[in-house]
Amino acid sequence: MDDSPIGIWLIGAKGGVASTAILGLAALKRGLIGPTGLVSQLPQFQHLQLAGWDRFVVGGHEIRQAPLVDEVARIAGQSRIELAKVVEQCRPELEEVDRRIRPGTTIGVGKTIAALADMDIPRNETPRQAVERLGRDVAEFVRAEKIGRLVVVNVSSTEPPADVSRLPSTWAELERLLEDKQCPLPASSLYAICALKSGHSFINFTPSLGDAPAAIDELARLRRACHYGCDGKTGETLIKSVLAPMFARRNLQVLSWVGHNIFGNMDGRVLDDPANKRAKVASKDHLVHEILGYKPNTLVSIEYLPDLGDWKTAWDHVHFAGFLGVPMTLQFTWQGSDSVLAAPLVLDLVRLTEFAHRRGHVGQMPFLAGFFKSPYGATEHCFDRQFETLEQWASDCETASGH
Amino acid sequence: MDDSPIGIWLIGAKGGVASTAILGLAALKRGLIGPTGLVSQLPQFQHLQLAGWDRFVVGGHEIRQAPLVDEVARIAGQSRIELAKVVEQCRPELEEVDRRIRPGTTIGVGKTIAALADMDIPRNETPRQAVERLGRDVAEFVRAEKIGRLVVVNVSSTEPPADVSRLPSTWAELERLLEDKQCPLPASSLYAICALKSGHSFINFTPSLGDAPAAIDELARLRRACHYGCDGKTGETLIKSVLAPMFARRNLQVLSWVGHNIFGNMDGRVLDDPANKRAKVASKDHLVHEILGYKPNTLVSIEYLPDLGDWKTAWDHVHFAGFLGVPMTLQFTWQGSDSVLAAPLVLDLVRLTEFAHRRGHVGQMPFLAGFFKSPYGATEHCFDRQFETLEQWASDCETASGH
Amino acid sequence: MDDSPIGIWLIGAKGGVASTAILGLAALKRGLIGPTGLVSQLPQFQHLQLAGWDRFVVGGHEIRQAPLVDEVARIAGQSRIELAKVVEQCRPELEEVDRRIRPGTTIGVGKTIAALADMDIPRNETPRQAVERLGRDVAEFVRAEKIGRLVVVNVSSTEPPADVSRLPSTWAELERLLEDKQCPLPASSLYAICALKSGHSFINFTPSLGDAPAAIDELARLRRACHYGCDGKTGETLIKSVLAPMFARRNLQVLSWVGHNIFGNMDGRVLDDPANKRAKVASKDHLVHEILGYKPNTLVSIEYLPDLGDWKTAWDHVHFAGFLGVPMTLQFTWQGSDSVLAAPLVLDLVRLTEFAHRRGHVGQMPFLAGFFKSPYGATEHCFDRQFETLEQWASDCETASGH
Amino acid sequence: MDDSPIGIWLIGAKGGVASTAILGLAALKRGLIGPTGLVSQLPQFQHLQLAGWDRFVVGGHEIRQAPLVDEVARIAGQSRIELAKVVEQCRPELEEVDRRIRPGTTIGVGKTIAALADMDIPRNETPRQAVERLGRDVAEFVRAEKIGRLVVVNVSSTEPPADVSRLPSTWAELERLLEDKQCPLPASSLYAICALKSGHSFINFTPSLGDAPAAIDELARLRRACHYGCDGKTGETLIKSVLAPMFARRNLQVLSWVGHNIFGNMDGRVLDDPANKRAKVASKDHLVHEILGYKPNTLVSIEYLPDLGDWKTAWDHVHFAGFLGVPMTLQFTWQGSDSVLAAPLVLDLVRLTEFAHRRGHVGQMPFLAGFFKSPYGATEHCFDRQFETLEQWASDCETASGH
Repeated sequence: MDDSPIGIWLIGAKGGVASTAILGLAALKRGLIGPTGLVSQLPQFQHLQLAGWDRFVVGGHEIRQAPLVDEVARIAGQSRIELAKVVEQCRPELEEVDRRIRPGTTIGVGKTIAALADMDIPRNETPRQAVERLGRDVAEFVRAEKIGRLVVVNVSSTEPPADVSRLPSTWAELERLLEDKQCPLPASSLYAICALKSGHSFINFTPSLGDAPAAIDELARLRRACHYGCDGKTGETLIKSVLAPMFARRNLQVLSWVGHNIFGNMDGRVLDDPANKRAKVASKDHLVHEILGYKPNTLVSIEYLPDLGDWKTAWDHVHFAGFLGVPMTLQFTWQGSDSVLAAPLVLDLVRLTEFAHRRGHVGQMPFLAGFFKSPYGATEHCFDRQFETLEQWASDCETASGH
Repeated sequence: MDDSPIGIWLIGAKGGVASTAILGLAALKRGLIGPTGLVSQLPQFQHLQLAGWDRFVVGGHEIRQAPLVDEVARIAGQSRIELAKVVEQCRPELEEVDRRIRPGTTIGVGKTIAALADMDIPRNETPRQAVERLGRDVAEFVRAEKIGRLVVVNVSSTEPPADVSRLPSTWAELERLLEDKQCPLPASSLYAICALKSGHSFINFTPSLGDAPAAIDELARLRRACHYGCDGKTGETLIKSVLAPMFARRNLQVLSWVGHNIFGNMDGRVLDDPANKRAKVASKDHLVHEILGYKPNTLVSIEYLPDLGDWKTAWDHVHFAGFLGVPMTLQFTWQGSDSVLAAPLVLDLVRLTEFAHRRGHVGQMPFLAGFFKSPYGATEHCFDRQFETLEQWASDCETASGH
Repeated sequence: MDDSPIGIWLIGAKGGVASTAILGLAALKRGLIGPTGLVSQLPQFQHLQLAGWDRFVVGGHEIRQAPLVDEVARIAGQSRIELAKVVEQCRPELEEVDRRIRPGTTIGVGKTIAALADMDIPRNETPRQAVERLGRDVAEFVRAEKIGRLVVVNVSSTEPPADVSRLPSTWAELERLLEDKQCPLPASSLYAICALKSGHSFINFTPSLGDAPAAIDELARLRRACHYGCDGKTGETLIKSVLAPMFARRNLQVLSWVGHNIFGNMDGRVLDDPANKRAKVASKDHLVHEILGYKPNTLVSIEYLPDLGDWKTAWDHVHFAGFLGVPMTLQFTWQGSDSVLAAPLVLDLVRLTEFAHRRGHVGQMPFLAGFFKSPYGATEHCFDRQFETLEQWASDCETASGH
Repeated sequence: MDDSPIGIWLIGAKGGVASTAILGLAALKRGLIGPTGLVSQLPQFQHLQLAGWDRFVVGGHEIRQAPLVDEVARIAGQSRIELAKVVEQCRPELEEVDRRIRPGTTIGVGKTIAALADMDIPRNETPRQAVERLGRDVAEFVRAEKIGRLVVVNVSSTEPPADVSRLPSTWAELERLLEDKQCPLPASSLYAICALKSGHSFINFTPSLGDAPAAIDELARLRRACHYGCDGKTGETLIKSVLAPMFARRNLQVLSWVGHNIFGNMDGRVLDDPANKRAKVASKDHLVHEILGYKPNTLVSIEYLPDLGDWKTAWDHVHFAGFLGVPMTLQFTWQGSDSVLAAPLVLDLVRLTEFAHRRGHVGQMPFLAGFFKSPYGATEHCFDRQFETLEQWASDCETASGH
């Protein structure tokens, strides 16, 4: 049995989500924390031959040069429990990962993200040059760490929506476009291409374009790689995806659904730019309509309040009509650490993707839809049905393995 | 095809739930309202041959003598929309139903409910005499209205928990006990016996004992009748049954779940008696534990505030741990009309029960579990899975019918 | 003693606030409702010789031609109690008032408000012509109803912010500007001029420009008239003005204060235009800063959701630091009828203004500051101190009267 | 000028409030934290000659033997910010204080508190013997630390309500009663007597009986000592005392006010005993009624949820009627650290009491009413008026000092 190291390559490797995932992985290896928050640790997935946490090795791309251990400490300091000791114990791993973080690219990330870059990033590359440079970083990591399978995960800040109207639909055409500095592909898509070209898997945990274009899916299938996205479903939208079906199944008519999100981490700062915010709001807003089958009044707002740090608060107000047309109200307030909610899902996705890849899966992975706000190609947004699909997949995998 | 009238016999026929169901049925017949709030009107149940609303005729038992139309107007006046015209248009039906309401029994209902009784109710009956008298009322209704199938629904106020330790497990033994004034069976069970003895169906929409005892189930099966319960899942508990699975499926650890309910209708007044409240709290509290598979700290409180009337407000506070043990919080506030939420479910249950009975179903109806807080014999409390079971049953019924 | 009728002239006479005030006044005259919500009915103001409700007569300007009784019925239908009978009983008064409503002006109201106008409104007037025409309407009302004192109240929708940089500071100069169609004065200011020129009082219940310019204050003083504003403090901002002082007095440091308002009445529809919204948000946002003496992160959003109608919901989230820098949170949700909160304050302001005028007061009325979000010239925004000022004024009035 | 050390003697010296106050005082002395949360640091009190933080020395009584530094670390660990470094830096002071903590008494504290005692506490003392023993501890502290003035503060857990019907009204009679083991005075009153007998000041920060009896007030005046209480107003009740006046001043009719409190610290564990809870609920519930001048439906519940630790959450639901009788709702959720809210008030009270004592004040200190839920002898519960009284007192003190 193959027991070579498994690579996790994080795009945005010093951001809140990546920092927390790196800390969490180190803490899992040291047995400092339990399985809470990890879907892949649920009983129904224990019969799969998922890789153990000690086999994973992390590297990544980033545009900011602050020490990783500082970023981790900053996030941990906002967690509302004392994690200082855990951070201290994991310091060796954090420093090790930090040494494997390479400068990324700012092509197409918009001016707000670009303004955060303080690493030494080549400024005049064509997209093709960027892909090649990034690819060399990944290849070097694979070589140095003797990586078997590798999963690249995009957890960098949300890019402004890209203009996809001019994108060709085949990989052959798209590849030619990479020569062109006017190529509309943003960084997230270049990272995806870089990963998939080498047969590595790619997960898009953000609403950025990434691996969404058909031509990139074709590339994945050509290289027999796995990929999926987009936009991790961690908090308010997760709750929407369990409450909206409830209204539908009781034939209660949702009149309006308002969601107001406030938070203050780096992601929030980037989303304070209306260009970047647009992609995020769209990804959060379509769900209710799609689950209900009709369009109530909906509003999603996201506001940046630096004092809240990573602590995201969402207030949702649902106005609905019941029998006889009587109007009623459900409100909820969700208070959680954005990064801490996302990080374990990143680890789960890596683990499940590595397993799927190992078993020969190729292309998109729709059984992972429940992890995403806007799963590619999906029309089912009810969380329970998405979860059932994942369980069914797991159960089918077992059967096929002769368990 | 049989198109004889279908009887709905309501226990607690002038209470908030019954009043609203009666008004709603009349409004449906007159086309004054749409299908909102009615589960049986969902697309996935339209291929069943469910009876049309115009075939239903209502009667019932009650212990209070206020005119039904006044009770309906009182509830409608608290609905937060103007229903006065609907009430006025339906007045003829309401008066008609009122003439079919007969004095019930106060055996075993506890002193708070008994104190509300102002109808002329025989005070010294044995349980058997009560069952016989109540049975004559139902039989007279069936005869006068030329009823084909009949469903009895208990929507009266919650009784104190009955002492079931002495209850025999067979109908033969239980029947003998009815002679005894010390028989521990409360009114709700006597109504159940009265219905099932004549082969009518029985639905227990409250947490009272009703048809729960094994001996009464035996009676139902002997008479080839259908029955099920208990305690309609209308608001806070419904939401628990969709949120708790979400925490479980994300492996988030619920540390505590507190639910605080305030309202001021007749039900609230009865539940203000600690004896009656005990049954209700137990029925609301077990769910979270059963869905999660472990026991977080839980608290359910129900408080009577007369100024709120039928307008129930529930505040729930869920404290949970995520990845790395980080504590987070979900709170929700539910504001709705208790009776308006319950009434359409009563109509749905009657409609689905009549259909099941017509198709030859006998005994308990576990496919209706999703309508109840404490479905008999059920271990599955996730609302999505309960709903899937209902859809599956509906789909099987179609198939069997050759649709 | 003078007992001639007292005039109330409402600008926006068929809007939600005006409709509710007109209905309420009629209901007060008929003894159908109690004093709830009326500040001037509090014990501490009973020794003033405030005019009785039966002396007030209402007329007004409006740009929409829908019958007043329909507007009143629409608002009453959203009140969440049954007011249909009250409306029916007051119908004669409502019809009488309707006959006294005259076409207003749309000069400077912005295109969203102008688009609502369906009355026959002269389109090419100079500001002076408008003032003269509007003045003739008021004069005719005074004559026909034998009005003694008159108070004009602006309760029309919020105008976009006017460009006041070019406004002269004296009435003499401003008056000349009225000839000019490019004059930047919006309708609200023309109504103010029209009232004050004739020595009537003027109250600006909105954040529109109205009587705020120094030149208009000079006019008021020249004509010995009373005036004040602006923007009635009815809900969320009222609560801010009692909670913010609490944080200040306990030396708790407010880190951020977010207010999210949702509602769906005509006002909301107008505020959905970003131009009109700007004035409102500014008026709601300055308070916290001014009370605390430092500037936390603040955000106020106002969103239009037609399904909510007049039922305004505000969610506020206050993030603050306590001892040792520990971060804590206060959230509140306010659910109320916007018009029903505002209407009694309009009646109070009219009553108190008439009294002040009668006693010889001239110019601005700072003792009324507590009724407004942005009281002219005020630096004190703590509601308790504002209220104390009102009480002190009332007490001084009594003393002066030899009580 | 006298610059001798000032003593703070804490009853319940290792509880959450005391621990936080001790940590905070040490941090203030070291300049590690700012003035946030300290009322006595507000600008309006800076002209008083309040003692500097470095003059205060802490000791106290306790019944539990856990090391103080552990209790401090436990509380700090729940504060939701990283205070571990602050605790570490203050460790020397914490250990020093710990050495000055002496075994208290469990007379009359109820069985829940008594069960927590693991220090070596004499079990068979008469009340007089206890007072004498406790007095010797205090005297020894005064001597060893060369204390000038001393303030004793009761921050121990809430005792069950004492039966005060048999209490004599003079000190002479009460003193004789101390010989009797059946004397109904609980520990809190014995500590008060012990302090006041020696001319020290006493503050009762809890709803326990303490210094409330008239006979103990007589003792204070005989010894020319200062004292006041009771029950620190830190969170939910503080908010009630600013919101209730708002409803009153707008003539809005409060129909019901429900407050639901959940938390999990030692105090919460003690209040989980219905006997202890009774005193607390009464102290929290009277306010709304007294401020409004009428009695709406009110409910206060306090529930113990160990997972919440010191993090208290209160949900309040206010149902009120506005103009025309229209029902509306205000809800708030308060989330804060119970101990962190209380601790600075303890320091403020000590500082203000020492100052008042120094200036010759004797007996109760009604100018401190705003710090308490149930201030002795007070009828004014509006927080703004209470605060104004404090400001007025401070201003009078300055004037008298010739500032």
